[in-house]
Amino acid sequence: MTVNGSERRRRSDGERTRAAILEAAARFATLEGIEGLTLGRLAEYAGMSKSSLFSAFGSKEELQLATIEEANEIFDREVVAPALEPGTPLERLRALCERFLSHVERYVFPGGCFFASAAAEIDTRQGLVRERVTGAVTDWLDLLEQQIRDAQKEGQLDAAEDATQLAFEVQALLLLANSQFVISGGDASPLDRARRGIERRLELAGAAPGTPYQRRRRST
Amino acid sequence: MTVNGSERRRRSDGERTRAAILEAAARFATLEGIEGLTLGRLAEYAGMSKSSLFSAFGSKEELQLATIEEANEIFDREVVAPALEPGTPLERLRALCERFLSHVERYVFPGGCFFASAAAEIDTRQGLVRERVTGAVTDWLDLLEQQIRDAQKEGQLDAAEDATQLAFEVQALLLLANSQFVISGGDASPLDRARRGIERRLELAGAAPGTPYQRRRRST
Repeated sequence: MTVNGSERRRRSDGERTRAAILEAAARFATLEGIEGLTLGRLAEYAGMSKSSLFSAFGSKEELQLATIEEANEIFDREVVAPALEPGTPLERLRALCERFLSHVERYVFPGGCFFASAAAEIDTRQGLVRERVTGAVTDWLDLLEQQIRDAQKEGQLDAAEDATQLAFEVQALLLLANSQFVISGGDASPLDRARRGIERRLELAGAAPGTPYQRRRRST
Repeated sequence: MTVNGSERRRRSDGERTRAAILEAAARFATLEGIEGLTLGRLAEYAGMSKSSLFSAFGSKEELQLATIEEANEIFDREVVAPALEPGTPLERLRALCERFLSHVERYVFPGGCFFASAAAEIDTRQGLVRERVTGAVTDWLDLLEQQIRDAQKEGQLDAAEDATQLAFEVQALLLLANSQFVISGGDASPLDRARRGIERRLELAGAAPGTPYQRRRRST
């Protein structure tokens, strides 16, 4: 994911139109699947002519790749960039988790996390679409792990913890919260279960108790 | 899921043929999606005529529902029934986790857990297929939770633990292991991360250390 959102340049009108189409495409893909993302079906969903989409994207794969790129931008804007504002690595780690859960709860994508949805769909396929999706998931896991390692260096987390293992456990809770939230049609209790599980796990790893996620959530 | 496998009656030849077709269908669905499971594509995958499949199942939805039922039977046979053989509730809980991870590792379904795959795909849809899939996932979570409650009653786990929360955390680790194993094309390290995470979590909940999963895995 593009981590440094502040350096993003301003978009021209044409770029804004394209981005609006791709935002619609990203939302559509979390409902109907990234394999269901054809020029014809997107045209119907976004209320556009198929020919104008064809001239903008050319092929289904091009459309899929552009949609993944746009989903990365959205994820960066909604989750990553706000969480990486100045703070300690442990604060950033907690903020990444909370921003992730809040982007699910706020229906940034109507079918939950774009990348979780796409990864589950194309996990057994081959090709560029799969590569880009798995690349984004790996970047996210690396980002969590980096905050853990930095927090260990600064003494906020126990240096004896296996950072990769801890990132795996945090990610597991985030992803189950996402999938249960979506499948239940918007029950928030799995999000709170993830919050409790992550906070308890971080404290087990030596973290000083954080602001309760419940309260922090209200202000994000 | 059908929990009591021992009461399953013997199948006739016709039923065995039908079961073989449906096993192929269940495997196919974890690769190409349960929405990709059409009579025509299954005929091609299983090397049969489309007309014979049509006479057996009639419609795509009928085929999907029969496939889910067969996947339940397979999951029961491979995961649930062996784990519920006599033992303490804590042993059964550990065995359920290990059998789940081992069924992923043994490629019982080539695209990983059938129900995780199907649930991610149809989470935003409506209808009977969705109901049956989410029902199976709920049954599995209830089964984990029941072992936890029973283990609490017998003093093997701390009575102060929230059983629903603990089942959620265990399930989170199992599902991330499943998805990372599939997406990596068979890297076993996520399975071991889940084993370590679950064992540590159970010990935090008061469990006496169990047989290391590594060793137990060899004998299952």
